[in-house]
Amino acid sequence: MRGPRIDPGGPLGRYAGRMPRRGPLPRLQDLGEFGLIDRIAALGGRRRAPGVVLGMGDDAAILRLRPHEDVVVTTDALVEGVHFRFDQESARTAGRRALAANLSDLAAMGARPLGFTWALAAPPSLPARTALELARGLLDLAGRHACPLVGGNVSRASEVSLTLAALGAVARGRALTRAGARPGDRILVTGALGRAGLERARGRVRHVGEPRLRAGRALARAGLATACIDISDGLLADLGQLCRASRVGALLDARLVPRARNLGAAARRASLDPLALALGGGEDYELLFTVAPRAPAPARLARLLDVAVTEIGAVTERGLRVAGAPAGQAHATGWRHF
Amino acid sequence: MRGPRIDPGGPLGRYAGRMPRRGPLPRLQDLGEFGLIDRIAALGGRRRAPGVVLGMGDDAAILRLRPHEDVVVTTDALVEGVHFRFDQESARTAGRRALAANLSDLAAMGARPLGFTWALAAPPSLPARTALELARGLLDLAGRHACPLVGGNVSRASEVSLTLAALGAVARGRALTRAGARPGDRILVTGALGRAGLERARGRVRHVGEPRLRAGRALARAGLATACIDISDGLLADLGQLCRASRVGALLDARLVPRARNLGAAARRASLDPLALALGGGEDYELLFTVAPRAPAPARLARLLDVAVTEIGAVTERGLRVAGAPAGQAHATGWRHF
Repeated sequence: MRGPRIDPGGPLGRYAGRMPRRGPLPRLQDLGEFGLIDRIAALGGRRRAPGVVLGMGDDAAILRLRPHEDVVVTTDALVEGVHFRFDQESARTAGRRALAANLSDLAAMGARPLGFTWALAAPPSLPARTALELARGLLDLAGRHACPLVGGNVSRASEVSLTLAALGAVARGRALTRAGARPGDRILVTGALGRAGLERARGRVRHVGEPRLRAGRALARAGLATACIDISDGLLADLGQLCRASRVGALLDARLVPRARNLGAAARRASLDPLALALGGGEDYELLFTVAPRAPAPARLARLLDVAVTEIGAVTERGLRVAGAPAGQAHATGWRHF
Repeated sequence: MRGPRIDPGGPLGRYAGRMPRRGPLPRLQDLGEFGLIDRIAALGGRRRAPGVVLGMGDDAAILRLRPHEDVVVTTDALVEGVHFRFDQESARTAGRRALAANLSDLAAMGARPLGFTWALAAPPSLPARTALELARGLLDLAGRHACPLVGGNVSRASEVSLTLAALGAVARGRALTRAGARPGDRILVTGALGRAGLERARGRVRHVGEPRLRAGRALARAGLATACIDISDGLLADLGQLCRASRVGALLDARLVPRARNLGAAARRASLDPLALALGGGEDYELLFTVAPRAPAPARLARLLDVAVTEIGAVTERGLRVAGAPAGQAHATGWRHF
């Protein structure tokens, strides 16, 4: 909870023109660090959760695990101009997306969320309203997944960035990891892909992929997955990471990859290739996992995970190959066309 | 461990002139995200520690507590131009300072370190050597306190920033917090103050306050402290925070505040006021704590904590007052001169 006071009296700067001004619009520098923290707390940032022994406001937070659990931790950042732009998405959506990325990592481990920390860096001239909308986005999603904000930091910086660390808990020996896929294993994916990539490509981001926390936990409990990763960088890129960690290859059938509803029509209207969006678009936050050859059929896995599950390929000894896609499609990702 | 690739081909930018160029100097954009992570791993970033079930490289890290422990988490950021400047301190010192701030928060809770995550944001034109020196600074201090790097993130940004989250473990019910000081309690501080403030004021930062992790754990085990905080924002500011959390006041005797060796002479040479540095300078990372009136004398507490301990005042019902300082000294901090 440490951080410098926000400099008073700086120029209003480049955020001046972005919002309609009816009377003076408070900026971060008007609110100050403690003012901002109080407002965030009022939004529900201090809501207690069962595992929180001590929340925001001390030198550190204290969280309690259940017996025979390990703690899981991940960190991810969203930087203005790199991962988001205020002219392409609302601050609330950006906030939601920052937490979604971290919760999706917990989902990919099969963990339940315990809480998260939020370090905000921003220019002193940022409208306070924008900072609070970022907080609302974070806290909306946090509330839905019982993952309370337990600590944070506010710093001055020349652009807005949100750096989160999310903590989760997983039963010992039950965590899903990227390593463990074996040749012959089947490759499956939850939900459908391409929507997040489509919105980003069109420059209008409204939808945020919902982290598959419930499905991840069910998968970990069932002990059926040999490896698991979340789709944050794109199906091909993330399957590549899973294969690297497992020291195996993969043969993916592009025709089997489940596409988001209306993806084809929407992509064509925007002169985009729906297959490229499904294979390459990230941030859908679906789970990609492998199971042994004799594991249950996709329909039974779908009932177990309470989400659509599609089989899209198989683990091989080596090499990354994609079938059913036009030549050149998978080129840029290190995948070979088959 | 997610993050965008660093853009290739950008301009060398404002870091071009900072280093002597003998042949081409690799920049972050030449190394790429995975190249950087591999180099950091080679520096010891993948060294295993007893509590680390799974370290860097998966969607999240897995850490194990001992029985009857809770997990403690804190986050803190260092932003270029706000908290550090490359013309005032080396990248290695800045890295060390980033982790010191987080470990000091763990010390103030009486926790033992478990591990930390590091999100680096930087311009693609940053010399790779600078990024690796930041890593060396972090990992030097991490190694001394058995606090391994267990995860991270790399983002493009217009200035360098390091955002860390540190995890620790504390025996249930034994954590030190800011709340709990009662009127009549004695106020004590470890070590000596003012050196970090002096170096910052002179614009030459070489020394980094050592987080008092061992003393914090000893204090938590002994169960003697009624409240505790680390000195990161300055003695008066942090004692103010402790009092606010405990809903009490304090009477501090400025004459008793232990000053760093040679602080007086060095401060006068730089036309600085040593008392202001001792009362207001932050980042000394000493522990400030309160004990009941009949708790052991400072000399016995010093043996228990294995560090110098000085009694500097007493907890009162309300108000923040400082004795033994010239009028106006404590003015800016909300303290009243007495």
